[in-house]
Order: sequence, then structure tokens, then C-alpha cells
Amino acid sequence: MDIITNKTITRFSAGDFLEDTDIMAVEFPLTIYINDVEFATLVCTPDYLEDLVIGFLASEGVIRTFSDIISMNIDDRSGFCHIESKRDIDPNYFTFTKRVLGSCCGKSRQFYFQNDMQMSKVSAAKVTLTPRQVMTLQRELQESSDTFKETGAIHNACIASPDGLIIHRGDIGRHNALDKLYGYCLRNNITVHDKILVFSGRISSEILTKASKIGVGVVLSKAAATDLAIDLADDLNITAIGFIRRGSFNIYSHPWRIKKEAE
Amino acid sequence: MDIITNKTITRFSAGDFLEDTDIMAVEFPLTIYINDVEFATLVCTPDYLEDLVIGFLASEGVIRTFSDIISMNIDDRSGFCHIESKRDIDPNYFTFTKRVLGSCCGKSRQFYFQNDMQMSKVSAAKVTLTPRQVMTLQRELQESSDTFKETGAIHNACIASPDGLIIHRGDIGRHNALDKLYGYCLRNNITVHDKILVFSGRISSEILTKASKIGVGVVLSKAAATDLAIDLADDLNITAIGFIRRGSFNIYSHPWRIKKEAE
Repeated sequence: MDIITNKTITRFSAGDFLEDTDIMAVEFPLTIYINDVEFATLVCTPDYLEDLVIGFLASEGVIRTFSDIISMNIDDRSGFCHIESKRDIDPNYFTFTKRVLGSCCGKSRQFYFQNDMQMSKVSAAKVTLTPRQVMTLQRELQESSDTFKETGAIHNACIASPDGLIIHRGDIGRHNALDKLYGYCLRNNITVHDKILVFSGRISSEILTKASKIGVGVVLSKAAATDLAIDLADDLNITAIGFIRRGSFNIYSHPWRIKKEAE
Repeated sequence: MDIITNKTITRFSAGDFLEDTDIMAVEFPLTIYINDVEFATLVCTPDYLEDLVIGFLASEGVIRTFSDIISMNIDDRSGFCHIESKRDIDPNYFTFTKRVLGSCCGKSRQFYFQNDMQMSKVSAAKVTLTPRQVMTLQRELQESSDTFKETGAIHNACIASPDGLIIHRGDIGRHNALDKLYGYCLRNNITVHDKILVFSGRISSEILTKASKIGVGVVLSKAAATDLAIDLADDLNITAIGFIRRGSFNIYSHPWRIKKEAE
């Protein structure tokens, strides 16, 4: 499926209006059914949809492992995904106390303290990085983000080792980009506790929680962090680093994972 | 309540690590009860909470007018908001077919086509702007955003007339910033159909829908737009403009509202 599209726009430039073609990010609604029950609709960038669904369901606690999924059928044209799962949806999932408002407008405190906290793992990662590695990974993320360059509308995320990026995914939704990574790792049995999440967006409490569910010990971002995200990073033994910009960055939590270069 | 806070961080700069204090945006969870039923929890920047709640409930269709609210009690310390409303929550609101995943990770197609489309209004706005006014409004938004400058974590939004900004609100959540504006307008009986929404973030389909519910005819942003947002703007007779940067911008829909300056 196309993840970008052309639209005719009117551009104002140098004092004049002109008709022009602009490249734009596609927003694709994908409705997920689990054992014939409608579960959720994600609005996403339409690539790596299997990984997106797997990562999303694991992150929501609906599946525990990839093998919980018996079959998955995605209809690109209609935007429906039918999952046959070994686990039915817990009927309590839909009760209002678990109501979730997503990453940008909020979330249920109930969900936060119950589901999130059940699913989040205190990191045991022993991985360390040098400042040079921190800055190189962030630069590599930015350099590899073609769709963002074209459309300006994509969040980018990578799973990386200290020596370089491993998997790169982008999405108009910040959470979706992380779920695509999570789904890939689950499907391919990749252990991530010694890996690093490199992200283009702000580190909010929900992004930090998602990183913890994925299982990484380090989160890097070129953007800012919020106070709640840092409190969580402290608790979950995750090293959170923001404002990575030429030659400098802020370590918000667990700075012991960043080691000075050998002289 | 404080909307920013200080945290001790480790800064890496010019080859050295140093302890430093950083100013960070506060993330505040606010749980809303309507007639003693838990409705939702918003994670927000804790200012203008009354407006936030009013705008959010109106945007969700839970109240129709400000006068639907008999009383509102917000406990800043515990983060609970109790609303006595003339209208109980529709029991169907919580059924799974209306499940909503928020602004960054998606939304229910059901909700999209049913609730959103019921609540969105085709704009009858006759307001027009000159290119100079478009660029001035966007510049004024950026100049007035102190909290963003300090923390780098706040989305900004204004209701404006062609001649200048009228109300400015910021929030860590993009939707919240718009709901704070919406609530203010509802509470103060301000008509907005001749007004302009000036926004710091991307124009996604959900932001466009929210702008339509608020009732503005023009949306300005320094950032990009998605294809679905533009389709909606076309349908709803809203002029959407993005990438407003020194001397140029892109008009995505209904360019007739932008008129060349008289020579």
C-alpha cells in the first residue's frame, strides 16, 4: 500500500499563489477484530501492518506471545484485520474504568496503574553507551527518515544496538511506530533488553511505558521529556535521554549507562 | 498548580558530564466523573482545567451546551473532577464499537463516521485573510509560547481573528490545547465561526475534526497535514493551511479564503 500520496495544493511563495503538487502522508484506518469481536481501530501509516497489530495487541495485554495468534487476515482495501486468537478478549477490557484516551490527549489512571504497571518491566539491561554512540544513533535515525523528509508528518523509531540502528519504522502515530517495532521483535523472537530505543518524538509517560513493555533499557530522543516520564524511567531503571543535538544531550535518569570514551 | 517543574539532570556538553537543573513540563492525570460514573482520565498540563473538561465533554458529545453542567468540582491535589450534569452518559458510549484510541495512535472508524460526523459542522465561515495575516498569526503564536520555549514539550493553539490572536492555550496533549479553547468559548458564549484556529502541530484528521466541532473555518499550522485531514477539510468547507514558514505556506483546501493584498 502507498504510504504517501500526491495532492494538488495552492502554494503561496515569494508573493504569489501557484498550483503545485505536494507529497502527503497517508492516514489509514485499520479495524481489528479478535475472534469476531470488534476490538479497536488504529489510524496508521499503512506499512508493516502485521507487526503493528501484533505489537499493539501485546502492548494492550491482549496477547502474551506471538504464538497466541492462530491466524491473521488483513484486507488492505477495506481496512479490516481479522485475528483468530487462542485468548478471547477479557470482557472487563471494555468497561469504562479502563477507558483509554491515547497518547496525545491522556489515558485512564486505572489503566496506567493496573494494566500498564502489570505489563511494564523493571529493566535489568546492563548495556552502556558512549556519548559519541548516543549522538551517532540519533543522527542515523534522522538521516534514515525519508518519509518524514518528504511529508513532515511521520514519527520515527528504531531499535538499535550501541553500534548502530537495527530496525527502523515510521508512522503518523507515535505509538504505532513503537508497536511496529515491538511486533517485529515478537514475531522474530528478538530479545531487546540489551537494545536501545531511538525516537523522534517527546518522551511522555506513555512513550516511556511503551518502551518498558517492549523491554528496552535506554530511550534516546532529540526532543524533550515530561516530569511523569522521568519519574517512571527512574522507577523502571530505564535511562532516558533527550535534547540530543550536536555535541550535547540531557540524561534524565540512570546516567550510569553512559560512559565517557576511553581517552 | 505548577505547569512546569525543576528536575536534576546530567547534562553532557562540550565533552563533559555535569549536574544541572532542567525545567520540565508537568503531566497531570485528571479523572472525570459524571453523575458519579467514572468517564475518562485526561493526562494534561494542569491549567485551565475547567475549560479543558467542558471542551472535552462537548467534543465527545456528552454535553451539548455549557448549561448542561449543573456543578463542577475539581480537586487539584487528587486529580479528580466531579461533574453534576443534566445529561447522564449514554450507556452505549462505552461499548466497544465506539472504542477510541487517541490522537496519536488512532481512533475508531465507528466513532469517526458516527459521532464525529454527527458533531462536525460544515463551515459557513466567510472570513478571509491576506497572506501577511496568515504569516503574522503563525509568528505571533510562536512568540507567545513561553512554556514551549522553556520545556520544549507543549503544543500551542490559539483562537484568532484575522487581525490577531484572541485566546492562547498550551498543553502537552495536542487535543487538550484545543479542548481548552473550546471550553473557554462555550463558557463565555464566544462565537467562533468567523475565527481562525492557529496551531503548532500537524493537521491530522482528528485535529481537523476537532477544529470542525469547535466551529472555525480556517486552520493554520506551521507543520504538515495528512491526506485524510485534507479530504475532511474539503468536505467540511474548512481552509487548511500548513508549512507556514517565512514568506511561504501551503493552502490545502478552499484557497478562496486567502486573498491577495491590495496593491
